[in-house]
Amino acid sequence: MKVLITGIDGYSGWPLALHLLSRGHDVVGVDNFVTRRRVREVGSWSATPIPSFAQRQRLVNQLLGKELPFHRGDLGRYDFVARVLEEEHPDAIVHLAEQRSAPYSMIDVHHAVTTQVDNVVGTLHLVYAMRDHCPDAHLVKMGTMGEYGTPNVDIPEGFFEIEYRGRKDRLPFPRQAGSWYHWSKVFDSGDVMFASKIFDLRATDVMQGVIYGIRTAEMTDRRLLTRFDFDETWGTALNRFIAQAVLGLPITPYGKGEQIRGFIALEDSVQSLRLAVEHPADRGEYRVFNQFDAAYSINQLAETTHQIATELGLSPRIEHPPDPRIEAEQHYYAPIHERLYALGYQRTRELSEVMREMFTDLLRYRHRLEARRHVVMPTIGWRRADNPAALNARVAASSAPPSAEPPPPVQDR
Amino acid sequence: MKVLITGIDGYSGWPLALHLLSRGHDVVGVDNFVTRRRVREVGSWSATPIPSFAQRQRLVNQLLGKELPFHRGDLGRYDFVARVLEEEHPDAIVHLAEQRSAPYSMIDVHHAVTTQVDNVVGTLHLVYAMRDHCPDAHLVKMGTMGEYGTPNVDIPEGFFEIEYRGRKDRLPFPRQAGSWYHWSKVFDSGDVMFASKIFDLRATDVMQGVIYGIRTAEMTDRRLLTRFDFDETWGTALNRFIAQAVLGLPITPYGKGEQIRGFIALEDSVQSLRLAVEHPADRGEYRVFNQFDAAYSINQLAETTHQIATELGLSPRIEHPPDPRIEAEQHYYAPIHERLYALGYQRTRELSEVMREMFTDLLRYRHRLEARRHVVMPTIGWRRADNPAALNARVAASSAPPSAEPPPPVQDR
Repeated sequence: MKVLITGIDGYSGWPLALHLLSRGHDVVGVDNFVTRRRVREVGSWSATPIPSFAQRQRLVNQLLGKELPFHRGDLGRYDFVARVLEEEHPDAIVHLAEQRSAPYSMIDVHHAVTTQVDNVVGTLHLVYAMRDHCPDAHLVKMGTMGEYGTPNVDIPEGFFEIEYRGRKDRLPFPRQAGSWYHWSKVFDSGDVMFASKIFDLRATDVMQGVIYGIRTAEMTDRRLLTRFDFDETWGTALNRFIAQAVLGLPITPYGKGEQIRGFIALEDSVQSLRLAVEHPADRGEYRVFNQFDAAYSINQLAETTHQIATELGLSPRIEHPPDPRIEAEQHYYAPIHERLYALGYQRTRELSEVMREMFTDLLRYRHRLEARRHVVMPTIGWRRADNPAALNARVAASSAPPSAEPPPPVQDR
Repeated sequence: MKVLITGIDGYSGWPLALHLLSRGHDVVGVDNFVTRRRVREVGSWSATPIPSFAQRQRLVNQLLGKELPFHRGDLGRYDFVARVLEEEHPDAIVHLAEQRSAPYSMIDVHHAVTTQVDNVVGTLHLVYAMRDHCPDAHLVKMGTMGEYGTPNVDIPEGFFEIEYRGRKDRLPFPRQAGSWYHWSKVFDSGDVMFASKIFDLRATDVMQGVIYGIRTAEMTDRRLLTRFDFDETWGTALNRFIAQAVLGLPITPYGKGEQIRGFIALEDSVQSLRLAVEHPADRGEYRVFNQFDAAYSINQLAETTHQIATELGLSPRIEHPPDPRIEAEQHYYAPIHERLYALGYQRTRELSEVMREMFTDLLRYRHRLEARRHVVMPTIGWRRADNPAALNARVAASSAPPSAEPPPPVQDR
C-alpha cells in the first residue's frame, strides 16, 4: 500500500515510516519541522541527535534500500495539502502532524490558540482534500486516550450503548479532556466523525496511550533512532523520570502520583498503526481504537525508574511536587481495548525491558541531557500566573499571535 | 448589572441590549460587523432596514434615554479583547459574537475553517481575558441545541447520570453535531467547560433553540427592529418559509420535513438570557441550559406558514426538495428544558401569533425581499459538488484563506 504520513519527522512518524517500509509498503512523507522549532523555542533539544530529514532520506536509501519521497509543507495551507493528495493518491493517510504537547498548549493564550487552530485546521484541510482527490483513501488519525479524561465508568472504544430514561441508543462516549491540547484532539475527533459521514470517507480514530521508547526493530543503526524529548514541555512523564534519574535530579511524579494512564511501547504503537492501515475502515465508516497496551500509575513509572536507576549505580530519589495540572489524582480507570487484538495485535515489548533500553541509550547521550538539564524540571502551571519568568522568557519568541505562514527554514538540531 | 454583549449588532444581540437596558442594566457592546459583511457576501441583506450602529446608539439615547457604550473590534485580536475587559470590568458577558450559519460553514473548506477558527479563537480569547481582568464575571455563552444532534434518547441539560457496565457517573451528554458550524459550538462548549474549571470562572452555556421573530416589546419604533435574514445561508427555515410565501415562491421543507427542532420566540429568548444574567453561576461552575420553548417539525412550520399566508390572501404552495443536509428526516426528539423555568421563565409569545407579526412586518418590507428574491431558494449542499456555480460566484470573494486581520470598515446596509 502507499501510505502518506503527515508529521513523518516526528517522534512516532519516523519509526512508523521505517516499520511500514520494512513491511513492503510505500511511504510518502509530509512535515513542516515545526516540532524541531518548538522544542528549540522552550530551550531544549532531543537527547538523541536527530539527522536532518534529507540525511534521514539518504539513510533509508543506504540502509533499507528504499526510496522515501517527501513534501515539505504546512497542513495549514490548503493549496499544499490538496496538491500533495492529488499528486500522491495514497491508499492511506496516517495523520500525525499535530501539536502534541499538553503543557505547550497551557503556556498562555497564544499557545492555546495555536494548538487548537493548527490541529483543527490541518485535519479539516486533510478531509476536504481527501474528498476531492482521494475519497477512497483511509484516514488513520492520531487521537489520544486523554480525550476521555478519567470517568468513573469503563471507557469504551469511541461509542457505547446506553439506556437513559427508558430508551436506548449508541452514542459517542463523552469527552472530558484535561488541557487545550487534549480538547483540540476531541475537536478533531468530532470533525473526522462528521467528515466520514458527509464525505463518505474511511476513518480510523486512534485513541493513543502514552508512547514510550526510543527505538524499534528497524533501527539497526544509531542514526535511525527517533527523537527523545525530556524537557517539561515535550517530554512525557516517563521520559522526564529517566532523564531526571540520569542527571541526578529528583524524579517528580505530580501530586499523589496515583494518576493512571494507558501506555504502549513505541514498537507496539507502530505495529498497531500498521494493523490499522492494513485493515482499512469501510467507506463512510468512522471507527475508534483505544490504542494502549497496559495502564500504569505515575507512581509505578517512578518506582520502576528508581529501581532500574539503582541497579545501574545511579542514586535516584523520588519527590512529589504539587500537581501543576488540574486533574484527579485518584480515580477509576478501566478503558476497553479489544479492537486492535481482533486485528492481530500482540504485545512484543515489556515496560521494564524498554525502560532499561532507554537508560542505555540515554547514558550514551548523557552529555546532551547535561547540556539542557535546566529544562527538565516542571514549571508550567494549568492555572494563572503559575508560569515563572524563566519559562516565559524561553517562550517569549512565540508570544506573537499565531500566523498561518509556514515556519522559516530550520537546520536541526 | 453591567453586561457586555459581544455581537451586539446581531440578530439577538441587539434585542437583548434593548431588553437589558429597559430592565435597568448597563450594557456595553462589542461587534466587528462581520455579519453585515457576510450577508452581503452571499448577495443578500436584511429585510428590515438596519441603521448603522452609530444610529442605533443615537436611537437608544433618544427613545430609551440610555447610553450604550460600544467597542468596535474583533475577538480574534487578543489585545482588543483584553483591553475591553480591563476597561469595562463587566459583571456579565453575553457572548454572541460567532459565525452562526450552518450553511455558510458548509460552502467550502475555507468557510469551514473560518467558522471553526473564528468561533473557537474568540471564545478562548474571552476566557483568558476574563481570567486576567474580570475573573468574577459571569460568562453566558450562546451554544445551540444542534450540538446534541437527534439521539434516540431524551436530551438532558448538558450532563446526565448514566450506568455503564455496572458503574455510575455524571458525564457530559454526547454531542453529534450536523455541520462544521454546529461542531464549532461543540468545541466552544468543551473549551468553556474546561476554562470554568481551571480558571474558576462562572459560566452558563445556553443550548439555544432556533429563534423566531423580528421584534420585542422594547421595539417601540420601527427603526429599532432587529435584522431579518431570509437568504438560504443566513435565514432560518421559518424565515425562509415566510419570505417564500410573501414572494410567491414555493415553501421548501427539506426532504420528508419531519425533522424536529426546538424553537423559541425572540422575546422569550432575550427573557431567558436576562434570567441567566440575573442569576449567575457560581465561581467554577459550568452549567448548561437547554433554552427553547417548544419543539416543532419543519412540516408544522411549513403548514402554519401556509395557513397564515392563505388567510392573508397569498397563494402559498409547499414543495419538498431533497434534503441538502445530512440529517435524520425522521427521529425521536425529547430534550429536557427545566432549568430556565426554575429561574422564573414564562412563555410570553405563541408561535402563530409571532408568525402573523412577522408576516405583517415583511409585507411592509416586501420590496426588500423582492429585490433579493434570487437568494431565498436552497442551493448549498452538505456533500461534494452540490454547490452550484451561482452560489460559488457569490461567495468567490471569501475564498481566500481566513485572515486574523479585522474586516474593512462597512457602511450598512
